Amino acid sequence: MDGKTTKEKSPPILQTPRNTVQRLSRRASYDREVVNAILDDAYTAVISATVEGGVRAQPIYFWRIGDELYVHGSRRNALFNALMDGQEACLTVTLLDGLVMARSAFHHSMNYRSVVIYAHARAVTDEAERMEALKQSVERIEAGRWAQIRRPSEAEMRGTMILAFPIAEASAKARHGGPVDDPEDYDLPVWAGVLPCKIAFSDPIEDTNTQPPD
Amino acid sequence: MDGKTTKEKSPPILQTPRNTVQRLSRRASYDREVVNAILDDAYTAVISATVEGGVRAQPIYFWRIGDELYVHGSRRNALFNALMDGQEACLTVTLLDGLVMARSAFHHSMNYRSVVIYAHARAVTDEAERMEALKQSVERIEAGRWAQIRRPSEAEMRGTMILAFPIAEASAKARHGGPVDDPEDYDLPVWAGVLPCKIAFSDPIEDTNTQPPD
Repeated sequence: MDGKTTKEKSPPILQTPRNTVQRLSRRASYDREVVNAILDDAYTAVISATVEGGVRAQPIYFWRIGDELYVHGSRRNALFNALMDGQEACLTVTLLDGLVMARSAFHHSMNYRSVVIYAHARAVTDEAERMEALKQSVERIEAGRWAQIRRPSEAEMRGTMILAFPIAEASAKARHGGPVDDPEDYDLPVWAGVLPCKIAFSDPIEDTNTQPPD
Repeated sequence: MDGKTTKEKSPPILQTPRNTVQRLSRRASYDREVVNAILDDAYTAVISATVEGGVRAQPIYFWRIGDELYVHGSRRNALFNALMDGQEACLTVTLLDGLVMARSAFHHSMNYRSVVIYAHARAVTDEAERMEALKQSVERIEAGRWAQIRRPSEAEMRGTMILAFPIAEASAKARHGGPVDDPEDYDLPVWAGVLPCKIAFSDPIEDTNTQPPD
């Protein structure tokens, strides 16, 4: 889902004081490929912003097209409207990969992959671009689906706001692998290792309704 | 993990203008049992706050004890220190339960359970309470583990900040079930239904190292 011709080249991620990981910086990356791979494995982000002087945050479905992260929602969404008034967003994506069981309490940890992006939202207003963005929101789940479903009506399009955030001032942070204990703790008689986990899909559940449920 | 005697009763969740769900409010709940059940199924939250005039957010491991949500981290964590300076936090927990495949683009959706909490952090400073909180952070993963592992040393405790957030001004929001399409779309020849998903654990991977890896 790169959205680019092969001639265009993505600019590098910007590393600024704000998006430079301070704690456990060896786990950080500012490589666009690393950032994109994490984003493409996830479905939900949290958008945070300052609204009327206070912090607000909201979980949301997102998808990536090229160097931008997209979300959509109602035109009446208060957080969206604050972003349109110029408030900057912080977008956070987290994938939990495992629970790390160490021999000491202190070294218990998580395996994870996360991305944090600081960005101002761009309202997607061109109707063709809006339709293409919505197509990608569905096609990322199942390629070819857009051709089979009813496309958005004019009224549905009118009520929908689509925002795009540049993936520019971003950072990835990840932990992989087993526990790292203090040398003197390796002899303790306790199981140590990783409980691996991931978002796993089970068998699809077909909707056999022939009209809207009550 | 209730942390209370049966005689104590949790106060109701506070419903304020700020934590009242505005969009699709039929999906919202302000019931403490509903909020707690979502929190107890999750391992990671996002903490958002305003730091030096700008929004910041960070994914983090959390656990619940009674009516409080706990996190821990380094004393040098910048976001923690902003919270200690009095900044309010917004905590977000999201569980993705499925992708909802409708017959129209517009009615595609997600099944999810989420919680949003507004709260000021309380630094946990009493040493016995701190040790008990760390015990619960491990015991929530595997009951009985605390007795088997090396407990935190004084130096480890000194470097660790533990914050507790009251689960008071909170809301839950959830979507369940299949797609809800417009009546005229039910005849379209496209598969519709739910792709269910969850955080699934696979076989534990034992750490067979006998000393710290390089």
